Amino acid sequence: MPYFDSASAAPLHPVARQALQAALDEGWADPARLYREGRRARLLLDAAREAAAEAVGCRPDELVFTPSGTRAVHSGVAGALAGRRRAGRHLVVSAVEHSSVLHSAAAHEAAGGTVTEVAVDRGGRVAPDGYAAALRDDTALACLQSANHEVGTEQPVAEVAEACREAGVPLLVDAAQSLAWGPVEGAWSLLAASAHKWGGPPGVGLLVVRKGTRFAPQGPADERESGRSAGFENVPGIVAAAASLRAVRAEAAAEAARLRGLVERIRTRVPELVPDVEVAGDPVRRLPHLVTFSCLYVDGEALLTELDRAGFSVSSGSSCTSSTLTPSHVLRAMGVLSEGNVRVSLPFGAAEADVERFLEVLPGTVAGIRERFGAPGTGPVTGDAGALVVDALGRRCPIPVIELAKVFGDVPVGGTVTVLSDDEAARLDIPAWCGMRGQEYVGERPAERGTAYTVRRTS
Amino acid sequence: MPYFDSASAAPLHPVARQALQAALDEGWADPARLYREGRRARLLLDAAREAAAEAVGCRPDELVFTPSGTRAVHSGVAGALAGRRRAGRHLVVSAVEHSSVLHSAAAHEAAGGTVTEVAVDRGGRVAPDGYAAALRDDTALACLQSANHEVGTEQPVAEVAEACREAGVPLLVDAAQSLAWGPVEGAWSLLAASAHKWGGPPGVGLLVVRKGTRFAPQGPADERESGRSAGFENVPGIVAAAASLRAVRAEAAAEAARLRGLVERIRTRVPELVPDVEVAGDPVRRLPHLVTFSCLYVDGEALLTELDRAGFSVSSGSSCTSSTLTPSHVLRAMGVLSEGNVRVSLPFGAAEADVERFLEVLPGTVAGIRERFGAPGTGPVTGDAGALVVDALGRRCPIPVIELAKVFGDVPVGGTVTVLSDDEAARLDIPAWCGMRGQEYVGERPAERGTAYTVRRTS
Repeated sequence: MPYFDSASAAPLHPVARQALQAALDEGWADPARLYREGRRARLLLDAAREAAAEAVGCRPDELVFTPSGTRAVHSGVAGALAGRRRAGRHLVVSAVEHSSVLHSAAAHEAAGGTVTEVAVDRGGRVAPDGYAAALRDDTALACLQSANHEVGTEQPVAEVAEACREAGVPLLVDAAQSLAWGPVEGAWSLLAASAHKWGGPPGVGLLVVRKGTRFAPQGPADERESGRSAGFENVPGIVAAAASLRAVRAEAAAEAARLRGLVERIRTRVPELVPDVEVAGDPVRRLPHLVTFSCLYVDGEALLTELDRAGFSVSSGSSCTSSTLTPSHVLRAMGVLSEGNVRVSLPFGAAEADVERFLEVLPGTVAGIRERFGAPGTGPVTGDAGALVVDALGRRCPIPVIELAKVFGDVPVGGTVTVLSDDEAARLDIPAWCGMRGQEYVGERPAERGTAYTVRRTS
Repeated sequence: MPYFDSASAAPLHPVARQALQAALDEGWADPARLYREGRRARLLLDAAREAAAEAVGCRPDELVFTPSGTRAVHSGVAGALAGRRRAGRHLVVSAVEHSSVLHSAAAHEAAGGTVTEVAVDRGGRVAPDGYAAALRDDTALACLQSANHEVGTEQPVAEVAEACREAGVPLLVDAAQSLAWGPVEGAWSLLAASAHKWGGPPGVGLLVVRKGTRFAPQGPADERESGRSAGFENVPGIVAAAASLRAVRAEAAAEAARLRGLVERIRTRVPELVPDVEVAGDPVRRLPHLVTFSCLYVDGEALLTELDRAGFSVSSGSSCTSSTLTPSHVLRAMGVLSEGNVRVSLPFGAAEADVERFLEVLPGTVAGIRERFGAPGTGPVTGDAGALVVDALGRRCPIPVIELAKVFGDVPVGGTVTVLSDDEAARLDIPAWCGMRGQEYVGERPAERGTAYTVRRTS
């Protein structure tokens, strides 16, 4: 039963399990106490901190353990912003950051701060120049992920860090997706990561604040972890997390090369095997283990369900798989198709045979769903052949795009089709369909109900 | 090697270890995902929530898991204060709350709120009337521990909760020390606790917010745990925590009776075996497993070190064992002796033979330390016999009290001794010495350096 969602969580690494066992016996006590059980816990905690710092490439006293990567980001952003309060209250983030960063930015804005979101290209990557242009005299902090969690695109962290250094602005790097593969290069100031992404147990994150970075921890005071992460330390979890990071790093180079081959095979074969697929993310500057594609005319939730039935666990950025019924903000920022979206992230040790089997199963699965969704009751079509109007109000992704495609053959070259839709995904997917089909996307305007999206036939 | 500090952390319960093992295999994935690994994690999380809610006596949808008891308190206090912002910004806490509550109160004060600390009696207990008198029209929240973590005194939570209910003020109960023994009675509104106190793993706390309680989570938004505890859920830890709580509750009544007997033996025998000892905490309304006493003329750190050498792990509220060189705020609020302070908290299953051995070892250990500290270079003594002045400047606890005791025999009845000291512990321990010796504590006044504490001989 292949699990292909290591970007969400990786199963516990065998080394982490052993370390956890040992640390449950030796490291359960309060490391702040002076008696033998406390001293043993302290020794384990110190050793774990040294190991993690070595893997990150920082000093042990720059690194604290947090209860999760999310908490590391929340604490890191809040502490760095407060520490630079005198410089100003402007925060720069990329448009494709993890929700923990974007939610921190929203909280900062709600508290009176200002935020600039730096756009990305169609591959999901920020331009160093564009990022540098967003820095201002009152910029207190900049945030950039090392690599994107949904499409695997690596960001130009070293160049952006250099631009930040020149501007005197600290850069916080969310390294959650990349730390298993290697340290983050460049002159960054803060770094956050999450252990369950590298085969450590859930419940452990880390926050690094480089010496010389102004930092004022927020929230109630607490003596633990240099005052930067409140609450009794989860020493067994921390020990297991550090052990796992060392272990995956020892295998990282070889495993990256191997998984990169498997991912390349998916990137190449899926568009050959499945018609109307868009593969997302930078084709070269990318994580070794992660690939994302979207299938036109396919309902994402149905696809996930069918793949799960066939034994494959993957995730999706489609609107129908989110509780808010909006497509992933990452796909939206990239301007790529969101319907029928699938993210495959291969865990360490993923078997080639499982990848081949996935490629065998996928075409039939997609075809089956397309067949099921292909003949919905067509909404009323009005207007003449030169200016058709399709009413897809009340229909959810992928129906509006399917309705568009169904009538498009009836439109003469130069004619238009206008789709009325109140589904958020249409805003992203109708332009994406035009891009894939080489047709002209004229634009959108508010309609009496929902929005009218107009497409012109050019060929 | 008896470990007598379960109030800090209890070793992992065997049931918790089994549950953790199983949940590491079955519950490592993201419980928000729809594939089988995610569904399995969700089932485990839901079952753990139901088990914990049953033990607490609340509905499962009122309970969220947090990364620690400290984080549960921080989130609970901040969320409840924000939810009641319209009522006002006044917070009531007892003077002997855990530091997580007092630090939350300090943060609230720093942000412009007001705080009333309700005093306790010499046994460490608040009076329900006194607590009720602190409630005002603008009181947003009241906090009271179920039982004190340093001296074991149980608080009148049900009566205080009733007073709060009448005043329309929610009561947050820090139940960290008592939840292993049973649910918290009364009409409280919020409750916080910590799993590693009941034999669960570190890294898990819980926060209960009763239906109908106004609550506005603070900090960046996050979908996990009903928006009340950010970050990827530590499902294996949560499963182990819930299993352990069930397990200790099944044994709680019998074990409480057994440990109460052992604690009673310590409470009775220590003052018989060791001269000049004060036992702290309410003699009757107390936790079954915890007893605290202070030894006059004894350095707390030296005592802990010697007991550790003899194989006993205990903790202390003495100033010399704290990083701030101030005695525990709990002992200070109670007005009891802080020097040579020892807290014994017996874990589940503590052996009677180990307690007897502790009673054998303690008298010689205390006597040895007293001998070592008994003849320090006496500071200059000035004044005549009717009004002696002892210079103990620069000397740390227990020296100032020892110096006082050494010259006291030379003072005629009606005469005074004034001790000059710059040690914070003297402020608590010189009056406490007077209480134990039946002598009159005249008072303190600022001196050229430090503070002058004056005692009159009455017998």
